[in-house]
Amino acid sequence: MTNRNRQVLLVETPKGKLAPEHFRLAEGAMPSLGEGDVLVRTRYISLDAANRAWMQGATYRSAVEAGQVMAGGAVAVVVDSRSADFRPGDLVFADTGWQDYAALRGKQLIPLPRIEPMTHLLSVYGIAGLTAYFGLLRVGRPAPGETVAVSAAAGSVGSLAGQIAKINGARVVGIAGGAEKCAWLTRELGFDAAVDYKAGDLFKALKAAAPKGIDVYFDNTGGDILEACLFQMNPKGRIACCGAVSQYDGAPAPHGPRGIPGLLVVKRLVMQGFIVMDYYAERGVALTDLQSWVAAGKLKVQEDIIDGLENTPRALIGLLAGDNRGKRMVKVA
Amino acid sequence: MTNRNRQVLLVETPKGKLAPEHFRLAEGAMPSLGEGDVLVRTRYISLDAANRAWMQGATYRSAVEAGQVMAGGAVAVVVDSRSADFRPGDLVFADTGWQDYAALRGKQLIPLPRIEPMTHLLSVYGIAGLTAYFGLLRVGRPAPGETVAVSAAAGSVGSLAGQIAKINGARVVGIAGGAEKCAWLTRELGFDAAVDYKAGDLFKALKAAAPKGIDVYFDNTGGDILEACLFQMNPKGRIACCGAVSQYDGAPAPHGPRGIPGLLVVKRLVMQGFIVMDYYAERGVALTDLQSWVAAGKLKVQEDIIDGLENTPRALIGLLAGDNRGKRMVKVA
Repeated sequence: MTNRNRQVLLVETPKGKLAPEHFRLAEGAMPSLGEGDVLVRTRYISLDAANRAWMQGATYRSAVEAGQVMAGGAVAVVVDSRSADFRPGDLVFADTGWQDYAALRGKQLIPLPRIEPMTHLLSVYGIAGLTAYFGLLRVGRPAPGETVAVSAAAGSVGSLAGQIAKINGARVVGIAGGAEKCAWLTRELGFDAAVDYKAGDLFKALKAAAPKGIDVYFDNTGGDILEACLFQMNPKGRIACCGAVSQYDGAPAPHGPRGIPGLLVVKRLVMQGFIVMDYYAERGVALTDLQSWVAAGKLKVQEDIIDGLENTPRALIGLLAGDNRGKRMVKVA
Repeated sequence: MTNRNRQVLLVETPKGKLAPEHFRLAEGAMPSLGEGDVLVRTRYISLDAANRAWMQGATYRSAVEAGQVMAGGAVAVVVDSRSADFRPGDLVFADTGWQDYAALRGKQLIPLPRIEPMTHLLSVYGIAGLTAYFGLLRVGRPAPGETVAVSAAAGSVGSLAGQIAKINGARVVGIAGGAEKCAWLTRELGFDAAVDYKAGDLFKALKAAAPKGIDVYFDNTGGDILEACLFQMNPKGRIACCGAVSQYDGAPAPHGPRGIPGLLVVKRLVMQGFIVMDYYAERGVALTDLQSWVAAGKLKVQEDIIDGLENTPRALIGLLAGDNRGKRMVKVA
């Protein structure tokens, strides 16, 4: 253990697109521990579209302000503890922020099991996997044979949500940017069809990919893709609103999607926003299912690991531009 | 019984605002009956914002085309029957259209009880009352003490939905156009507060009227009022999408409300469209409740009755402009 604590600070609240100059690498003091505190060493930082939303204001958490260490969840190892609940060597999930070391209250830490590879704790067994699981099965609730559409389908949550829909007997259409990602969805992950939203005429392409309409739409993007799916929804369809990656990086959208509320009424649709924490009590059941699917080879886990704390800003900027395939994270140590 | 059958025809599909010249009063032949048909005499025609939506295209029913008798539900009396299920004198609800007489299949008729006043069959015990009941209690589901906001609150559905919310222990905020309607909501119907959306700064007025935020929003309007309510919703709030009267009369809205899907995610909101027919199986329970509330003086029924079939077009045009208070209908005979 050294005395160095590298930190990535948010220099200013971005007004438009996130850029490298919004961040600065600094060196902070090693944090000292009060009674009940735990010192953790960050191992892998999770990159998520929501990180960008946190900079704009309070969401389900308080905003990250200029001058602060950028917030972010991570897998970390306990290196020192003044809490009876944790001992050095324990593996935990915590909002360490983008830094080498963090001192946190014991109750802010979630104990993690030792599994191999450890990175699966951030992907399929982490927030991404649980979000896909609960969003699809508790909010979307597809019946066997129904058509499920998933946007940002090559991303961490989308790639898992689509596969979970397949496992549950649905017909699955992925929406992603670029022919390469689309080919990966159908060839590697077993999606029934994929639509490249960058190829133009999204309405037409979606209609061709989902000729019987959409029963469940798992929305990770909002914006134009949400609008296109709304118009293809079948009566009594369900839209699980998971995130709005199209809306986070830049000025707020001037307007919402057309067809609201008219299409909701005429087609009796349900749109439901959800956050994975709301389902925390059911986490055990979800993890058991996810583990059995991974073990059986039914659920493929794609991870996109970038090395070095100093690369966290560009890892997030790239994620917002859709560069990643599967779960993006940064290996810190 | 005469041989005259006056009919109001839709002359052309309106592109913008509905106007008298879109209709024409004509005289049709008395319809003749085939096996299984029933001839009915129209008594009271129900005017509904949805009538306007029917002209624009298929909704939950097929579109009303230019040249056809304008569609519309009515209370009617059987005058001749070639169906074993109906006898002359029977009271029914049916889509007679805007005409004196209609020949319909027996299975298109819904038998009605004889009650006084008969007009209550179109208001509190008709589609308006059932829509308010199911939309509020099955879709909105307010808990006692929660805040319920209702738009088009002085209209047929809104005035009942707000009162049903009060009966169920909620705090109720009505949104209506004009100081007079607002005063009526609080003084006569017992709403806790009312917001005049025509008075400007809807966001601020709504915040003052619902200082603890909105838990359930019963949306009859869509558009700017929906948007304003979205921003005031509390976490885990529910939006019952009943209709979009602000959107029916004129060109389609270029965009939907801001904050979708972002606010749905962050606040875990549910927006659900519904149509009263979906709850038809539970109609008996609803009518029992509604009757007991009316009998106990807890639910006030406001009706706005215009005389004469020839006045049906202006009755609908006025309804779309918000002229009515409570349930608007036309007395034909």
